[in-house]
Amino acid sequence: MAQTFLNTTAAYSVRFRIQLPNRPGMFARVANVIAAVGGDLGVVEIVQERREDLIREITVRGRDLSHLQAIVSAVKAVEGIEVQAVADMVYALHEGGKIGVSAKKPITSPADLARLYTPGVARVCQEIYEHPLRSFTHTLRGNTVAVVTDGTAVLGLGDIGPLAALPVMEGKAALFKEFGGVDAFPICLNTQDPQAIVETVARLAPTFGGINLEDISAPRCFEIEERLQAAVDIPVFHDDQHGTAIVALAALKNAVRLVGKSLPSLKVVICGVGAAGVACAKLFMAAGIRHIIGCDRQGALYAGRTEHMNPVKEWFAQQTNPERRRGDLGSVIEGADVFLGVSGPRVLRVEDVKKMAPGAIVFALSNPIPEIMPEEASPHVAIMATGRSDYPNQINNVLAFPGVFRGALDCRARQISEGMKLAAVDAIASLIPDEELSPERIIPSVFDRRVAPRVAEAVRNTAIQEGWAEKTNLSPQISFEEIRY
Amino acid sequence: MAQTFLNTTAAYSVRFRIQLPNRPGMFARVANVIAAVGGDLGVVEIVQERREDLIREITVRGRDLSHLQAIVSAVKAVEGIEVQAVADMVYALHEGGKIGVSAKKPITSPADLARLYTPGVARVCQEIYEHPLRSFTHTLRGNTVAVVTDGTAVLGLGDIGPLAALPVMEGKAALFKEFGGVDAFPICLNTQDPQAIVETVARLAPTFGGINLEDISAPRCFEIEERLQAAVDIPVFHDDQHGTAIVALAALKNAVRLVGKSLPSLKVVICGVGAAGVACAKLFMAAGIRHIIGCDRQGALYAGRTEHMNPVKEWFAQQTNPERRRGDLGSVIEGADVFLGVSGPRVLRVEDVKKMAPGAIVFALSNPIPEIMPEEASPHVAIMATGRSDYPNQINNVLAFPGVFRGALDCRARQISEGMKLAAVDAIASLIPDEELSPERIIPSVFDRRVAPRVAEAVRNTAIQEGWAEKTNLSPQISFEEIRY
Repeated sequence: MAQTFLNTTAAYSVRFRIQLPNRPGMFARVANVIAAVGGDLGVVEIVQERREDLIREITVRGRDLSHLQAIVSAVKAVEGIEVQAVADMVYALHEGGKIGVSAKKPITSPADLARLYTPGVARVCQEIYEHPLRSFTHTLRGNTVAVVTDGTAVLGLGDIGPLAALPVMEGKAALFKEFGGVDAFPICLNTQDPQAIVETVARLAPTFGGINLEDISAPRCFEIEERLQAAVDIPVFHDDQHGTAIVALAALKNAVRLVGKSLPSLKVVICGVGAAGVACAKLFMAAGIRHIIGCDRQGALYAGRTEHMNPVKEWFAQQTNPERRRGDLGSVIEGADVFLGVSGPRVLRVEDVKKMAPGAIVFALSNPIPEIMPEEASPHVAIMATGRSDYPNQINNVLAFPGVFRGALDCRARQISEGMKLAAVDAIASLIPDEELSPERIIPSVFDRRVAPRVAEAVRNTAIQEGWAEKTNLSPQISFEEIRY
Repeated sequence: MAQTFLNTTAAYSVRFRIQLPNRPGMFARVANVIAAVGGDLGVVEIVQERREDLIREITVRGRDLSHLQAIVSAVKAVEGIEVQAVADMVYALHEGGKIGVSAKKPITSPADLARLYTPGVARVCQEIYEHPLRSFTHTLRGNTVAVVTDGTAVLGLGDIGPLAALPVMEGKAALFKEFGGVDAFPICLNTQDPQAIVETVARLAPTFGGINLEDISAPRCFEIEERLQAAVDIPVFHDDQHGTAIVALAALKNAVRLVGKSLPSLKVVICGVGAAGVACAKLFMAAGIRHIIGCDRQGALYAGRTEHMNPVKEWFAQQTNPERRRGDLGSVIEGADVFLGVSGPRVLRVEDVKKMAPGAIVFALSNPIPEIMPEEASPHVAIMATGRSDYPNQINNVLAFPGVFRGALDCRARQISEGMKLAAVDAIASLIPDEELSPERIIPSVFDRRVAPRVAEAVRNTAIQEGWAEKTNLSPQISFEEIRY
C-alpha cells in the first residue's frame, strides 16, 4: 500500500543542467539511469549546441527527498557527462516570492503625481473622510482581502509559527488573484493569543474589504472568527472551516444524486472535529442532513460524554448523534452512508469501509495522505474522493474561496452567511450536469475556470437577497460620469 | 500674492465629453469660454466623428474646486454644444484604487499548484522553520515594506483617521514601486494608542522586510518609531521625519556649496518642531551644523523654557540654540543663514526674510502653501526652495524613501542608521555636479531616474560598512544552483 502513495510528484522535482558529448546515445544513458532509479523524466531542453558537445536542461520528478537525492546521485555518476547544476524546482520557484505589489496607474509626470499623490490625493482623503463607504470605490480596499494566520495549524505541519507559514499565505494570495481576480495580501501574526489576534486584525480592517483566516488551530479558530466578525463590518471567513465545508457539501450533493439517496436520509460519520469537521457538520445540517456522528481520537461524540471535551465539541455532541451512539470509528461507521475524513492519515481501515451501507460514499480529505487510500477503499464503495490532485474527485478549497470573496466584494457584503455558503455549494455542484455525473466526476476540476464566476454570482445574489450587501446596484463602475458638477 | 498661489493645477482637472456640430468655429467657442474663465485647456481628443457632429473629450485644469465648478458651468452654457459627461480627473483616477497584488508565477496546471502551493509549499515552510532568514529569499518578504499610518497627521489635513488616510498610503506604495521597485503595502491602523500601534505593527513583522511609518502625529511618532525599532529586527523609518531630513539636507549641502559657506558656520532657524523639524535638526547636527534654533508657535525653543514643552521639545531645547536666544520667529531669524520651514502656510513675512544674513537660504516646505511664497521671498534671498512641483528646487521625500528602502532591503539591513541617512544625503546632493549647480537647481528632479539607484547603493554600502547588513554578499540571487544535493 505504501507504494501507491509514493507516486512521483511535481512537489519533488529537480532540474539538471548537463553537458554531454554531442553524439548519439549519450542522452539515452541519462534517461536509462533515471528510469532505473524510478525517476520521472519531464521536459528536456537544449540550451546550447556545439559541434563537440551540447548542454541540456532536464526536469525529473521523484517521490520524495531521498528519492530525489538518489536520482541526483545516479545522474551524476553517468560516465561521460558533466552535471553543471542541479536546482530543486520548488525552492527555485519560491525564490523572490510568489506575489508582488503593482501600480495600476503610471506615475511618470508631475501631472500624474499631482493627481495620484500630493496635492490631488488630499481631495480623495477628504471625500472618504466625509463618506467612509467611498473607501471601497476610491482605494484598493474594495478588491482587497487579508489572508491572516498565526501559523498554528499550517497544512499538515502544525504549529510552525507565522514566518514559516508565509509561503502558504502567499500561495493563497496568488490563487486568489489567479482564480478570483482578488488582491489578497498575507498577514502573518507574531502572536497566538486569540484576544491579541482579534484586536490586531480589527485594527487592520481599514485597508481591507474582507478577512480570510487561514491555518489557525481549533478550537481557537472558532472564537477568533466569531469575535472578529463581531468587531468589523467586512466579511470574515475561516477558509479551513467554510471553504472545506462548501466544497465537501457540493461533492456530497452530487454523490448523493448519483447513488439515488437524499440528504435527509443520510447517515454521515465525520472523522475529525477540528475546524473543518465542525464547519462541515454545521453546513451539512443547514443543508438538511439530520444524522451526523462526529468522531475524534476518543471515538464518537455524544451528549453526555465528559472526557476530552471542549465547548465546540460539546456543541457538536449536543447537535448531532441523535441516537447517542458511542464507540470508536470502527463501531459507529456501521451502516453509515457517508464517511467524511478531515483528520489524519490512514485512520480508516478497509474492514470499517466494508461495514458501511450499500452505495457508500467515502471522502478521505486528509492531505497529502488520506484517511484511506483510494486503491483500498474503492472496491468497497460507490464513490471515493480525496483532497489530492492525482486521484479523481479532488475536494479542494480552491473551488470555493476565490469565488466566495469575489462575490462578497462585488456586492460589498458585511458577512458571509450560511445562505451565501449554501449558494456557493449549489453553484459548484451544478457545474456537473447529470449527463457528466459519474463516480469519478462528482466535482469540477480545480482548473475549471467557470467555477469562480459562478460561485461569485451565486454568493452575490444571495447576499443581496438576504440583506448582507451594502451595494445592491451591480452595474459596472462608472468612471466617466458627472458626480459633482 | 494670493493670485500667485492660485495657478491652475493637475490636482484640479476635469475631463469633458462634448458633442459639437461638425462645422468650423464650434470648438473655438468652447476654447474661448474656457479661456475667459481662466481654465487651462489640456489634451483635446476626438472620440467619434460623423458628418453632422463629432464628440470630443477635453481636459481642463482649474485653480480649485469653485474654479472647476465655474469652468463646468461656463462650458455647459456654450450654445450649440452638448456636454455629455464631466469627470473629475482625480476621482476618476482613484476609482478602483492605485495598487494591486500580482502573482509573479502562473498557476495554471496541477504541476504549478503542486510546486507553488500544496503539497510542495510545505517543503519551503519547513525550510523557513529551520532557517528563519530564508523568509527573506523564499517569500515576498525580502522586497516588501509596510506603509503604516494611524491617520493622525495626514498631509495638511490633520487627524482624518486611518480610512481617509488610505489613498495617501496607497499612493506612497505606488511610488515605492515606481521609483524603488519595492513592493509596499498600506496598513492603516484603527487605533491611535502608541502602545497599541507598536504592538500591532510588531505582530505584523513576519510578512515584511521593512516598516515605513507615515503621517503619524508628533510627538507620538518619536516614541512609536523608537519602541517599534527596538521590538523588530527589520528597519523602521518614519518618512515624515527622515525622508524630509535627508532631502532637505541634500538640498542644503548644495545650496551652501553655491553661496560659499560651510555647514559648521551656518546659523539655521527651523520653524516647526514636529516630526520633520526634529528629524532635520538631528540630521543637520550629525552633518556638522552647530547653530540651530527651533521655533514653534510660541517662538524660539531654549534650555529653560517651561511653557508648551514636551519631552521632544525639551531635547530640542537642550541640544540646540547654544546662545539661548528667546523671542519670536521675526526676532531669532535676524542674521540667520538658513530658514527651514516645516510648519504651516505663510508664517514667514518678507520683512523677516530681509533680516537674514547675506546669501540667505530659504526652504519653505509647508505644502501646498509654503511658509512664504517664492515670488515674495526670492528678491531678498540667494536660494529659495519649496515642496511644490511648480517652482524650482522641489524638496520632496520621493527623492529619498524609494532608494533608502531599496538599499536597506538589498542588504537586509536591521536598521536605517544616521550613517545610512547621511549616505543617502550625499548620494542625492552629488547628482548635481558643480557645472549644473545654480540657485534654481540645487536638487535633482523627482523624476530623475538616477536618484533611487544611487541612494540605494550608498545606503547599502554604508549599512555593510557599519555592520547593519545581514547580507553582505551582494551578488545577484542564484536561481539555478545546486544547494541541496
